[in-house]
This record gives sequence, C-alpha cells and structure tokens, in this order.
Amino acid sequence: MAKLKTSPRSLRFPSPPHKPIRAKYGHVVAVDIGGSNLRIALADVTGCALAKWVGSTKRTCSPTMVIKQIRKGVDQLLRQTSVPRSSLLAVAAGAPGPTDRNAGAVLATSYLKGWKDVPLGNLLESELRIPAVVENDVKLAAIGEHWMGAACGVRDFVFLAIGTGIAAGIFVNGQLVHGPDWVAGEVGYMIVPGTPATPAKRGTPGALESTIGGEGIKQQWLSSPDPGHIKGRHELSATGIFYQALVGDKRAKALLDRSAKILAYAIYNISVVLNSSLFVLGGGVGTNGPLLTATQRILEPYTQPSCPKLITSALGQDAQLMGAIRLALDTAESRLDRKLSDN
Amino acid sequence: MAKLKTSPRSLRFPSPPHKPIRAKYGHVVAVDIGGSNLRIALADVTGCALAKWVGSTKRTCSPTMVIKQIRKGVDQLLRQTSVPRSSLLAVAAGAPGPTDRNAGAVLATSYLKGWKDVPLGNLLESELRIPAVVENDVKLAAIGEHWMGAACGVRDFVFLAIGTGIAAGIFVNGQLVHGPDWVAGEVGYMIVPGTPATPAKRGTPGALESTIGGEGIKQQWLSSPDPGHIKGRHELSATGIFYQALVGDKRAKALLDRSAKILAYAIYNISVVLNSSLFVLGGGVGTNGPLLTATQRILEPYTQPSCPKLITSALGQDAQLMGAIRLALDTAESRLDRKLSDN
Repeated sequence: MAKLKTSPRSLRFPSPPHKPIRAKYGHVVAVDIGGSNLRIALADVTGCALAKWVGSTKRTCSPTMVIKQIRKGVDQLLRQTSVPRSSLLAVAAGAPGPTDRNAGAVLATSYLKGWKDVPLGNLLESELRIPAVVENDVKLAAIGEHWMGAACGVRDFVFLAIGTGIAAGIFVNGQLVHGPDWVAGEVGYMIVPGTPATPAKRGTPGALESTIGGEGIKQQWLSSPDPGHIKGRHELSATGIFYQALVGDKRAKALLDRSAKILAYAIYNISVVLNSSLFVLGGGVGTNGPLLTATQRILEPYTQPSCPKLITSALGQDAQLMGAIRLALDTAESRLDRKLSDN
Repeated sequence: MAKLKTSPRSLRFPSPPHKPIRAKYGHVVAVDIGGSNLRIALADVTGCALAKWVGSTKRTCSPTMVIKQIRKGVDQLLRQTSVPRSSLLAVAAGAPGPTDRNAGAVLATSYLKGWKDVPLGNLLESELRIPAVVENDVKLAAIGEHWMGAACGVRDFVFLAIGTGIAAGIFVNGQLVHGPDWVAGEVGYMIVPGTPATPAKRGTPGALESTIGGEGIKQQWLSSPDPGHIKGRHELSATGIFYQALVGDKRAKALLDRSAKILAYAIYNISVVLNSSLFVLGGGVGTNGPLLTATQRILEPYTQPSCPKLITSALGQDAQLMGAIRLALDTAESRLDRKLSDN
C-alpha cells in the first residue's frame, strides 16, 4: 500500500541550509529501506525534497523485490512531480545493518529476512541507470542530523538510535566513522553494569540492546509480577511502559530508572572514548521523554573528564531520508568532479 | 642526575621506515615530560635519534624549572653530538595530562604537582627559539607506534596505556582523535561490570583506573587477607602480583582473573564504538604477560560485531619520544610549507 505525498509542507522536511551542489539542474533519489517500510524521496539539487513515497517491506523483502519496489516508487515520484527521468543524477539508499559503502553492499541485516552480502549498489545502478551509493541507516540519520538537524555544524557528535535495535552514527573531526569492518557504532553490544556480560551470538542482540532496546524493555515488563490494574498491560510498548511510570506505576518506574541508569553508563562510556560533546538521541525509545529526563538527571554529576550533552533528533523519522538526500547530492557532486577532471 | 646516552644502538630506537621530511639538513628535539622522569632525544631530519638525555622531574616540577631543565638537556645533547644550535628546526613535547595542541597548553595533570593551563608551547619557543608543539604523552606514544611501531600503517587502532594511570591514543581513518575538549581517549573513566559506577571527582582516578590501574591493583592486593607466605608482599607492584598468580598464589590468581575480565570488557566496549581492529597495549600493567594472556582468552568468544586483536607495544618506553620526534618533524615540515607558500 504505497502512499504518495507531494506537498513539501506535508513532508515537514526542513529547508536545506547550505552546501548546494554545482550541478545547475537535476534531481536525486533518497531511499530508506527499513524492516517494515520502504521510504523514497525525490529532491532537487538544492536538497529540497519535492515528494515522498512510502511502501511496505513486510512481504516484499528479498533484494530483487525491494529493487522492483524502489523502481515503482521512483516512477510514481517522477510522474507525480513531472520530473524527467533524464534529470536523475544519483541515488543513495540506507539499509538496517552494516553496509560496505566502498563495495555498495549490505553486509548483513537481521531484518528483511536476513540479507547477507547483497550488492545493493550494483542492483540499484542496473535498475535506475544512475550512480548509486549504499549506507547503514543509522549512519545516514547521523549525516542528516549533521547536515540540517540537531548536530548542524557540530564536528564531533554521536547520533544514538534506540528503537528495537540500538546503534550509533559517529562523527569525529567532521567525518563519519565506519571502521575497518564497517561496524563502527554497533554500540548495542556494549557491556555496562546491569546488562549481561556474556558474548553475544551471531544474529542475536548485544548486551545493551537486549536490555534497553524496545524488545528488551518489553520482555522485562512482561516478566515482572502483574499488578493487574493496568488495562492492556501486555500490549504496551517500551515507550508506553515508561509513560506508565509517570502516572505512578511502581514497577514501570523501577524499569524506567534501571533503563536510564544503563543508558547513562553507555553514553558516558562512549563520551570517555571520543570526548563527543553532543549526543543526538533518535528512535522510539531514544526520544522517549521520561527516559531522556531520567538519563539526563543521572548523567549530571558525571562531569569528569567532560560532560556529555543530550538532545533529541530534530529530524525524527526523516533523518535517514535527509541523510540519503545529502549523500546522493555528494555522490552526484563527486561524479561531476570526476567528469570535469577527465575533460 | 641527568644521564646522556649517545650510541644509537644503546638507545634501541628502531630505524625510521618512511616519511623523511623535505628539509635537507637539520635536527629536531623530542621531549617526554613524565611524573618521575624528563627524557629528551635529538634526531636528524630522517627521524634517526642521535642521542638521548634523561633527568628527573621529582624535585624540579614547576613549569619554569622543567623548561630550564629541558634547556640544559638540549645544550648537553648539542655539545655531545656536535650539532650546532642553528640546525634545530622544531621541538615537540609530551605531558602526562590533557593538552590543547592548538594553544600549545597543558590543560591539567595530576603529576608534576598539578599543572593547570600551562602555556608550555610558548615557554619552549621562548627558551629554545624554535617552533614548538605540545601533545598528551599517551597520544604521542600512539603517534610513535603508528609511525614505526606495532601499528605501523594501521589506519584504525587504539594505543591503550595502563600503568599508574589509564588512557588511550586513538587513530580513526589514519588521524589521531583529540575531541572538542582535548580529552578523547580518557578511558580510565570507563564504567564496566566490576568497577565502581559512581561519578569520579575532579583530580581522582576514574572507575576503570581505580580498579585495574597499577595503584588500584596494589590496593586490592593489600586489602585481601594476607596468607603470610609471600616475602615482601607489601612491596609487590601490580606486575609482580600478577606473576605471583603464575606460581600458584590463589589470591593473586583471583585478582588477575578479575582484572583481566574488567580489561576485556573495557577493550570490547571501545571496539564496539570504533570497530578498531587493533589494540596496542603499553605501560607496566598493560604489557604484563599474565594479564595479556588472560585478557586475550576472555575476549576470544566476543566475536560480534568484530573481534579486537591485542598486541603489546613495539617501542616500549621509547614510544612517547618516537612520537615526539615524528610530531617535531611534521611541525618542521609544515613551517617549511608555510615559508615556501609565503615566497
């Protein structure tokens, strides 16, 4: 069930503040492949999103099917905006797992029925006949927040996404950190007091993720004794549970306090490694008000060697797509550079 | 009591493998200011150390006194090697605390009776009349290991120094990480299962350092019940205690196992943040054989998302001085670049 949105106002995309590319005319495609949704945006060379298309990846999750779906979405966006196909300069796509940007490959993901070493860049280039670049979705969100979100202009920051999964997009000296195996920022595996300390098995959540990721919180909630007075107790999400703490549920409050403490340790540990001055929190759990407030309160006395500052994502769900627009623009720009130097 | 060593063989400095600078003739001064010793080396433009001078900072610890001592050491080195003063191109100095390389200032140190915001760069330039650069000592050691030590040519690695203090010098994408407040790598503050989780007070050791730093290990050893059969039990250093574990002392073995577990968690946590493929261990505790073996064994099953590899420092005590030589050469080079672009 694909939906098409065309008014920039309805997209709630902010206006791009800087870095227009040198191409005078053209458009880029931004793709965010999630475990549930496929989202595509069409943007002009100034980075302004003209329209967005949303589909589902719940049934069509194989690489070939997702590529066909992307093609369908792009076709619809071009028709809707009357942009000619020849105007497309580049496409950038994000996937929910480690990706090798140089090879254009999704190395692994526990979503989409487990992709492994999928040459997504090549598949996209073959289908759309434009240069393609592939990046991890949390790293894309960090690029988005760095370009025009909560970390705009900040050279050293961490975008920390906490939803079902936990991962970080890390900027050091103004550059995104990938690591030699493309798994920098996989902080869902971090071990702190209150998490398990046993090694994580392949394909299973890491220590931090299994404790304060959305599913981990829900599991702890369901395994705590049921006081019986909360309607729909079993249907509550992690964020719903944390809001129960605010209305006086003691078990929810204990779970919130424990989760905030563990999150505070994890953030502090990242900050002592990198001295990141800013942590931008994203994802359903990461942007939860009660959790953020409790975590900030716990972190206050941790002033040595420096005090990490927490804020929530400014771009919300659009962070990935905005990062993909920026990355697609950069790809178009670098291709232009190469053409200019060849001539 | 200053000692002068002049034979390159006696210095045991390795030959510099690459990156000679463009200046055809000249020399640089490398300084390592420690809590106990002041060490100075004189090197030629190929990075080859000609002579080394060692003094004590136990009594002469004020900035002015240390500067005078450096002047004295440099004078002796120049006389000894018959190098004219006019041939000096630059000096690089390392200090045991956070330093602001841009401002040339030592921001703080718990050694040397507590320096604070000392403009060491300016003081050195005034005294020696050559360009000066100032860097944290552990970061200098990382530069040394990256240039011609255990991490030669490795773009992403962590030099982890564990002695009395604990800190790291971190390379990401081939660049040293400083952080916006110059305190990146202060991992002695990390919180893992087995360390305290309370906030560290200003000037006191962090959670990890207070547990597995040299003093922390000694304190735990002394507070454990005395079996009475080890001669000189109270005089044992952390490394001596760990060797007792090898000869069958059960309390020493328990302390070794606990320390290795905590060190393994800390290394694993750094690796999940940065995906550093290599950890180079330095310092008296960090290079202790029994600790390294036990830590490696604990880390073996921690293969997700990637497996950190541990090795010991190749340059040992000379890592800081080698890093200072490289940094002084780079400073000389960049001044040369500036002169060339001015003409």
